Amino acid sequence: MLGPGKADLLEGIAETGSIAAAGRRMGMSYKRAWSLVETMNAAFREPLVLRSRGGAQGGGAVLTDTGRTVLDHYRRIQQRAAQAVQKDVAAITALMHGGEGNGT
Amino acid sequence: MLGPGKADLLEGIAETGSIAAAGRRMGMSYKRAWSLVETMNAAFREPLVLRSRGGAQGGGAVLTDTGRTVLDHYRRIQQRAAQAVQKDVAAITALMHGGEGNGT
Repeated sequence: MLGPGKADLLEGIAETGSIAAAGRRMGMSYKRAWSLVETMNAAFREPLVLRSRGGAQGGGAVLTDTGRTVLDHYRRIQQRAAQAVQKDVAAITALMHGGEGNGT
Repeated sequence: MLGPGKADLLEGIAETGSIAAAGRRMGMSYKRAWSLVETMNAAFREPLVLRSRGGAQGGGAVLTDTGRTVLDHYRRIQQRAAQAVQKDVAAITALMHGGEGNGT
């Protein structure tokens, strides 16, 4: 549904107000960034990203409320998953070469 | 450290007693399966898989205690992660086309 790349792209759009700038800081072409946005917008019942035409900056992009909600859920998924598996990951790491420490 | 492929391979070895058979049921060549086993064995301080030479079946493979421990931790990681993210995944799914149901 949504992977780390798309989530980072959404976050970048929220922070930069621009699909191009968000893609650029991920080393992604505008075409690729825009294609991911289109895929996300098509997958959800309401768009996650809106292009704002005109205005002082000549048009940028913003997250919709749905976009912000989806991004928040995704970040929570990452945090909760990481937290939930922490002990077992540490236990595996401790059995590996170079894993004598605290599991980092 | 360990992904779903390697974990499934370990489980297959535990169930079939054979690297070749475990790989085969994953559509993997013996060479590839053995290479993954070697990578795992090298990454951990004790091997995860031992080849048992000879015996009635002419040599197979078994998980060591470490191998079983690692596999158990990995399965717990998968279960706990899935459980931890369940609500947020359902929330995202409900916002998607075709996601009107219970998030499945």
